Amino acid sequence: MNQDEPLTPCVHRMTSLGGGHGLYQTLLAARYCCEPRGVTAVVTVADDGGSSGRLRRELGQLPPGDLRMALSALAADDEEGSLWARTLQHRFGGHGALAGHAVGNLLIAGLCDVLGSPQAALDMVAKLTRSYGRVMPVCTEPLDIEADVAGLEHDPRLMRLVRGQVAVATTPGQVRRVRVVPEKPAANPEVLQALRDADLITLGPGSWFSSVIPHLLVPEVVDGLRRTHARKVLVLNLSAEPGETQGFSSERHIHMIRQHAPSLVIDHILVDASSLPSVSERDFIERAAGGLGARVTFRDISQVDEHGRPVPIHDPRKLADALREIMAY
Amino acid sequence: MNQDEPLTPCVHRMTSLGGGHGLYQTLLAARYCCEPRGVTAVVTVADDGGSSGRLRRELGQLPPGDLRMALSALAADDEEGSLWARTLQHRFGGHGALAGHAVGNLLIAGLCDVLGSPQAALDMVAKLTRSYGRVMPVCTEPLDIEADVAGLEHDPRLMRLVRGQVAVATTPGQVRRVRVVPEKPAANPEVLQALRDADLITLGPGSWFSSVIPHLLVPEVVDGLRRTHARKVLVLNLSAEPGETQGFSSERHIHMIRQHAPSLVIDHILVDASSLPSVSERDFIERAAGGLGARVTFRDISQVDEHGRPVPIHDPRKLADALREIMAY
Repeated sequence: MNQDEPLTPCVHRMTSLGGGHGLYQTLLAARYCCEPRGVTAVVTVADDGGSSGRLRRELGQLPPGDLRMALSALAADDEEGSLWARTLQHRFGGHGALAGHAVGNLLIAGLCDVLGSPQAALDMVAKLTRSYGRVMPVCTEPLDIEADVAGLEHDPRLMRLVRGQVAVATTPGQVRRVRVVPEKPAANPEVLQALRDADLITLGPGSWFSSVIPHLLVPEVVDGLRRTHARKVLVLNLSAEPGETQGFSSERHIHMIRQHAPSLVIDHILVDASSLPSVSERDFIERAAGGLGARVTFRDISQVDEHGRPVPIHDPRKLADALREIMAY
Repeated sequence: MNQDEPLTPCVHRMTSLGGGHGLYQTLLAARYCCEPRGVTAVVTVADDGGSSGRLRRELGQLPPGDLRMALSALAADDEEGSLWARTLQHRFGGHGALAGHAVGNLLIAGLCDVLGSPQAALDMVAKLTRSYGRVMPVCTEPLDIEADVAGLEHDPRLMRLVRGQVAVATTPGQVRRVRVVPEKPAANPEVLQALRDADLITLGPGSWFSSVIPHLLVPEVVDGLRRTHARKVLVLNLSAEPGETQGFSSERHIHMIRQHAPSLVIDHILVDASSLPSVSERDFIERAAGGLGARVTFRDISQVDEHGRPVPIHDPRKLADALREIMAY
């Protein structure tokens, strides 16, 4: 966190759905626009790569990596909170059995074993970091992702099944549809409560097929999003991701959401203004947004480097300002 | 800890030198007879087995196992302190790369990496557990143990060099002398302060060659023990240990201390009364104690099972009572 004075919060309770780096930036934004302890991060549990994947296979637990990142984003910014955030994120070096494991992943895994409940384990770590809010796995059992992918065969009409989050995220083909295994998993009941209690719910940014759409494959979550009185904002990515959404336009990102959750209703879609100059592109996006019942807000929400050039990462301050503005409509 | 009302403490500052299970029991006793936050555990750093040995080899750090056990012994006994103590002690199961690693060992190792100081890492964990006191490694660099061992060759006069704590602790031969490598290591400066500040210093019980004598191979520690105004108590083991002290009498334990630290002065030697019935045995012990300048106190300090039979583990309550009595002399 930078040292600037935080802006006056205007959101009482904010629930952010996502995973990975996209959710991390959103949670940094939440610290600016939401009341302390009012933030809830709802995190995907389908990761099968790196330290998370190793722990999940070895211990049969939830993949902890995205949960750990969310906890780090929400750690208190005093000396002790920052130290614990750094420790959670620290990865062991060397070339041995621990190399690459994040300390926080191991701590979460250990607390899950001892407490027998991932939610209790995460709340314990949140206490340790004197967290701005809570971190919740969307489901309490690990999920797997599988995808129908085109463009892997000579005949472009042929689809192939690709299994696993890493495989889907890095496929050279075009992802047409993703599923979670097991299908229609039960939601973490605490998540449904957090959807009910929120004033503002964000979905995205993040890896579209690994961190955003999987939330919409949990039927109770879609239902919870339909019933809540919260304002629901879909935050689009700043750029298509190499691999899973290579070459996807912004409206195609929106269509993908609708295709996977036809009954979903969204109030606002927040799009970075700097990455979308043309009027015709804005028209396309607005038309796609209509299918979700959403109005589109274009705002400059990307970071700039020291030369003022945009960097494809959301700027937490700008994102917070845009969310605050949407709440004021 | 049991739920009984703690006895009124009479020791202001107590510093306990040892390692492993012996130190663990002494620290439980310290909770009864020493003021909260007045306890300091000084822990050997020569372990090379199990989770500690793997971490030490993989990360080049201090072996954390005995440090972790001491922290667990000193954790606050409210709900949160007990939960953290349980989590520190919890070992991962399964058959993978993490199997057998204690969560606390991994946490200490991670904090050492992040903070760059083992003492700062241990103080951080002590804060987490709202510890009754501090835990200090006797040296800030890992040590190795090597021993001259008789009885491994056909000719009983021949000695062999045995290297490593596990090898020394489990040798079928008779250990004659141990050394630490590197020789004459520098002490952790915080330990020297804890020796100066103490009213009561305990040495032992514990594995004699792995957890007790190694402290006396750090010259500054012996010097610190000579200069301090604290009352110095050597607590003998309840029984000889299979392996390293197989068949050793109590007076031989005392002789071994003197052989490894000829300039050491001890005020009291505390011996379990139930394990030493005969008058002649007591005479032998008292004569050996004279060489260290110590008087001997015989007290019942062992645990009993549900049938009232002695168990070869020190009883924290009884040990606390005996130490309190020694302080009152």
